[in-house]
Amino acid sequence: MHDTQRPAVTISAIAAEAGVSVPTVSRVLNGRSDVSPRTRERVEALLRDHGYQRRGVRPEVVRSGLIDLVFNDLDSPWAVEIIRGVEEGANEAGASTVVSAIHRRGSPKSTRQWLDNVSARASDGAILVTTDLDSFLRAELQRLQVPAVVVDPAGVPDLDVPTIGATNWTGAVGATEHLTGIGHRRIGFVAGMPGLWCSRARLDGYRAGLDAADIPFDPELVIEGDFDYQSGFRAGCRLLELAEPASAVFAASDQMALGVYEAVRKKGLRVPEDISVVGFDDLPEARWASPPLTTVRQPLAEMGKLAARTVLRMLQGEGVESLRVELATRLVVRESTAAPRTR
Amino acid sequence: MHDTQRPAVTISAIAAEAGVSVPTVSRVLNGRSDVSPRTRERVEALLRDHGYQRRGVRPEVVRSGLIDLVFNDLDSPWAVEIIRGVEEGANEAGASTVVSAIHRRGSPKSTRQWLDNVSARASDGAILVTTDLDSFLRAELQRLQVPAVVVDPAGVPDLDVPTIGATNWTGAVGATEHLTGIGHRRIGFVAGMPGLWCSRARLDGYRAGLDAADIPFDPELVIEGDFDYQSGFRAGCRLLELAEPASAVFAASDQMALGVYEAVRKKGLRVPEDISVVGFDDLPEARWASPPLTTVRQPLAEMGKLAARTVLRMLQGEGVESLRVELATRLVVRESTAAPRTR
Repeated sequence: MHDTQRPAVTISAIAAEAGVSVPTVSRVLNGRSDVSPRTRERVEALLRDHGYQRRGVRPEVVRSGLIDLVFNDLDSPWAVEIIRGVEEGANEAGASTVVSAIHRRGSPKSTRQWLDNVSARASDGAILVTTDLDSFLRAELQRLQVPAVVVDPAGVPDLDVPTIGATNWTGAVGATEHLTGIGHRRIGFVAGMPGLWCSRARLDGYRAGLDAADIPFDPELVIEGDFDYQSGFRAGCRLLELAEPASAVFAASDQMALGVYEAVRKKGLRVPEDISVVGFDDLPEARWASPPLTTVRQPLAEMGKLAARTVLRMLQGEGVESLRVELATRLVVRESTAAPRTR
Repeated sequence: MHDTQRPAVTISAIAAEAGVSVPTVSRVLNGRSDVSPRTRERVEALLRDHGYQRRGVRPEVVRSGLIDLVFNDLDSPWAVEIIRGVEEGANEAGASTVVSAIHRRGSPKSTRQWLDNVSARASDGAILVTTDLDSFLRAELQRLQVPAVVVDPAGVPDLDVPTIGATNWTGAVGATEHLTGIGHRRIGFVAGMPGLWCSRARLDGYRAGLDAADIPFDPELVIEGDFDYQSGFRAGCRLLELAEPASAVFAASDQMALGVYEAVRKKGLRVPEDISVVGFDDLPEARWASPPLTTVRQPLAEMGKLAARTVLRMLQGEGVESLRVELATRLVVRESTAAPRTR
């Protein structure tokens, strides 16, 4: 509550009087460097004249109305799900979403250009979707006072910005228990790219699921993939050619699961009659697979939406409860899993 | 070339001197209404003082650096391909891409909000991806002097804005000729949503392809779908249950083709051994299908890129050569088609 009856002056009134845009007043208030000295002087004078005050721990929120959403590349299969969620979360608050790919992976030039654009448009916040967010980018965003959140379906370890991921370990336990529950004991696992947290968490969840059913871990059944279709295809071929082949395969991504489908088909076998397959992600492709794929759903759109809300809260000076939030995954049982053939 | 040695004053110099942003100067130059009278007066005075002149038929280009890309909903399977293309085309020119969904299909409120945002950020141009672009939206964009281009994979008839589509008819002829060329004569067709140009063009292409092989048209073999997976599944079931079933199915979208796959599987049959399937679009799902889907490629990313370039050219006052541009489709032969079983 205010302790004075004098109506508070608004940022837009200041902007109108100074003959500048609202984002410009915002830049002055936020102490940014990208305002001409003359403008800064005039805006600050008006702020003083009108007795404008930031309200204690919650400074007046001034917005350009733009949130930046950045991908390494726009060919990630998750991209559209995350874009949808961010756009919805931003839209709730009347904000719009600028989508960028920082092209040419790791190119300092394109990162620099993006940062210049973010600065020029006084972006309200940045949401980074990434598996290799570099420290330069994080430091620059901090310098520009642009709040940043990472949406991280891949689980990059040790980020020092708020990160929104999914419960990879729990999801993998559930998928494995689903397979043991319907009678499978030779369960292959196609692992994700090594070095990523999510790959480790999913592998650990697979092992925990086996333990829960008293099935000994057999390293022969674990094949390393890289999340892509081709690596799933190769892993599927190897798992089917083992002396004692797998009766089910749990792949750490939907794309790899679809590669396993193709390996099964090439062998003249069928999913799920001859071999059960479970994926991870629940991309639209999972629903459209033949048979429809049983998979662990990552709530990608919800993750995007939460990221937008978080960045907007940070903009208002609110604290973030936890640096790492994991939204719950959920097993979606479709038609790619069945009891193993009795031999 | 300039006919004077006096260096031309730049927009950014005017902006700095006026203590306003470059987009604000742009708004004044473009005669927009969303500038305060005081600001307009000051900027116009400075423009006069400095002898600023628009250069004949090519007015000085002033940019906010933002291009708006709008979908009805962000669950279109094409969305990410088009976003990638637009982002690349915008990025070439140093511009950024604001992605929006005009939520709640047909809601005047959300359209209004989007238009307000476009106006507030002085957007350089709008790219609409749509199957039901309404005339109100087009008229408002014209009023705001925001150049607009439609990317139109569905082929909406009679738009009065520049439209970038694909060669639907030619693509369908090629797909049909591929099937007749390997010996099919009972070729089912799953049509797209009625009332759309692209549905009609693809059906006509199918008929032309049959004619070229002297195969009489059989209306029993044409089933109406709506582009979605479920409608493809239902159509596939019907085509397989005919007294004289189809030996091949050409579906007017990849999603419907994947629905046909599922109908084939449910019948205990196989693609392509028992039945050949061809799709239309070439979404990533087509590559990941089992077997990988033979399909007609729409160059969606290229369409998006061309849309961005077109909108930027319009912004520079350049004319558009043709109101309707169709980029070439191309048949991508994978593993879902084979000669029919000899009976």
